[in-house]
Amino acid sequence: MTSNGLDDVIAASTRLSHVDGEAGRLTIAGYAVEELAPSATFEEVAYLLLHGRLPEPNELVRFSRDVATRRALPRAAVNVLREAAAAHSAPMDALRMAAPLLTLGRVADPVEDAMTAIGAFSTIVGVYWRLLHGEEPSCVRTDLGHAAHYLHQLWGVEPSAERARAVETYLNTVCDHGLNASTFAARVIVSTQSDVISAITGAVGALKGPLHGGAPGPALDMVLEIGRPERAEPVIRAMLERGERLMGFGHRVYRVRDPRADVLAAAAERFYASDVDRSTYELARQVEATALRLLREHKPDRRLDTNVEFYTALLLHGIGLPTELFTPTFAVGRVLGWSAHCLEQLRDGRLIRPQSAYVGPTDLHYESPVIPSR
Amino acid sequence: MTSNGLDDVIAASTRLSHVDGEAGRLTIAGYAVEELAPSATFEEVAYLLLHGRLPEPNELVRFSRDVATRRALPRAAVNVLREAAAAHSAPMDALRMAAPLLTLGRVADPVEDAMTAIGAFSTIVGVYWRLLHGEEPSCVRTDLGHAAHYLHQLWGVEPSAERARAVETYLNTVCDHGLNASTFAARVIVSTQSDVISAITGAVGALKGPLHGGAPGPALDMVLEIGRPERAEPVIRAMLERGERLMGFGHRVYRVRDPRADVLAAAAERFYASDVDRSTYELARQVEATALRLLREHKPDRRLDTNVEFYTALLLHGIGLPTELFTPTFAVGRVLGWSAHCLEQLRDGRLIRPQSAYVGPTDLHYESPVIPSR
Repeated sequence: MTSNGLDDVIAASTRLSHVDGEAGRLTIAGYAVEELAPSATFEEVAYLLLHGRLPEPNELVRFSRDVATRRALPRAAVNVLREAAAAHSAPMDALRMAAPLLTLGRVADPVEDAMTAIGAFSTIVGVYWRLLHGEEPSCVRTDLGHAAHYLHQLWGVEPSAERARAVETYLNTVCDHGLNASTFAARVIVSTQSDVISAITGAVGALKGPLHGGAPGPALDMVLEIGRPERAEPVIRAMLERGERLMGFGHRVYRVRDPRADVLAAAAERFYASDVDRSTYELARQVEATALRLLREHKPDRRLDTNVEFYTALLLHGIGLPTELFTPTFAVGRVLGWSAHCLEQLRDGRLIRPQSAYVGPTDLHYESPVIPSR
Repeated sequence: MTSNGLDDVIAASTRLSHVDGEAGRLTIAGYAVEELAPSATFEEVAYLLLHGRLPEPNELVRFSRDVATRRALPRAAVNVLREAAAAHSAPMDALRMAAPLLTLGRVADPVEDAMTAIGAFSTIVGVYWRLLHGEEPSCVRTDLGHAAHYLHQLWGVEPSAERARAVETYLNTVCDHGLNASTFAARVIVSTQSDVISAITGAVGALKGPLHGGAPGPALDMVLEIGRPERAEPVIRAMLERGERLMGFGHRVYRVRDPRADVLAAAAERFYASDVDRSTYELARQVEATALRLLREHKPDRRLDTNVEFYTALLLHGIGLPTELFTPTFAVGRVLGWSAHCLEQLRDGRLIRPQSAYVGPTDLHYESPVIPSR
């Protein structure tokens, strides 16, 4: 069979997550995302994905400590981040440059590699962000939870409990999502029995593509460009009439609501109820209501709900993350799924090697060109 | 449909190469590999894959000069290779660490990225090999052809014309081969509209896996372990009786002969006819004859021919490359196919995102663990 996008091909069996696009459900290793993501710590979800069940209390303590000890980066990785910052590289490029150095001085081992990537990714992003803005890296703290540590790496100060919980809910929500392109890339790479860091590096490269991890920024940009509630209707109407896509609405897989959107909407609602500036939040909800109304008017036969990118933008913006950090923050969460999928693929053990259809010429004949010798 | 290895799924249309496993034919952009690989220069084959046709003489001159100007590495890449050498990293790991740095200081552009990777990969491998052995990098020469430049980077001296031609034939022979796992990984990554260097970095990670690029070493090891022609029969017979796989025989795709094996066998024959030590060559041919005879005796219903790994080992060993450089040298050739497939995939434009089958639990309920607060 031929399938250029593989949309209709089941390329792996997994115990990690189940995307039910028809029913609008996402199951993470047995748990509905809306039940798990807002309540569990990142470390619990990490343990769940790597071990197939939630940890006992003593296992969780040990596991959390293990991940925390892997936060410090090899010196060579920090040096590469300095070079990347000097060249003004995009954060996802910097992550793709530093990630492969996580094997330095370590013996390759699938579980060790996975734990190291999970522990270190937040540091890579945090260190790079500071270097890019002329600041020295924050100290690595092992006494903070993973989510709080990530924000501490970025800002050099301990975040409020609300901020840490909000980013933790986000990381949990996006930790895995079936065979998306980056996860699939990781599985293809490790299916050769290559190492997990190689696979995760490839996945970072896939996630940086605009068709995959690149959408949360533009969703927020639209809200901020609209600026005032009363401008929502004319601006969106004009966009729809020009045939432009509204970023933040609709999803390739989910035909009904995207359950992650609900989780993040609730997290945003909760977060903005704390002592923070609500103006962007209120504007965004008004833009959303207008967009949904106009979309239904414009395309009455298609159901286009607010998607995960919209609430991601709203939540991460509220926490204080600039749009340039949205995709890297996605990676800090998704590295969990990549790692777990690699371990699962290594247990499965089969090489992934599809066929191609040749549509080029045949039976051409080679003649050496007559050129001055080189 | 479900297909864990995707063996029976056509995942892309391509004009780059056609692997006809039933007929034992490999077509490279219209040319039979046995006609193209031993005669064309690497630069001609590179042009062919990137542009879909062989170059006119003036185009070839311009193209070759362009590739040559991309041989020098960013300083940061050399620094990373020094760190990798200090940690005694495997050459494929070092390549996977340095490759992502090829974007430093450049604006991402698919064709520019492809050309840069093609030009620089041989330098990365050469520089790393020297650093790993305590030697400073060779100077970058732009007056040598690509194949000769690669050997010059490794050894610091200009190779003989026979050696350069032998490695050039090898690089051409392995430059592309349908949707193997590394090429497929590259296409998956770039299908998100990510950059070509990200995709090629992922492909390096896949190629380093033992199920993909890792076989040429062991094929030679068997020959060298056998050591004397008269030991071939008892050693191989004992291996077959123990149910061990003979490295260097059989291929997952080719049911008859692997055409690349013929090209490399002829290249080896030609190379060893020049003024070099023929002892390993003659031993290998005797081991091969014995292995084929015993395989037919042992598995009369299966056709197991000598494969590309066997002659790769023989040819590269003759040129003077140690087995640790076999897979990196493979990468120096295959980076051509990866690059061309990326450009093709970008033209196609579809995201590759397959489905997965969920086989884990459902409807579990989350309860917060009772642990000391962190």
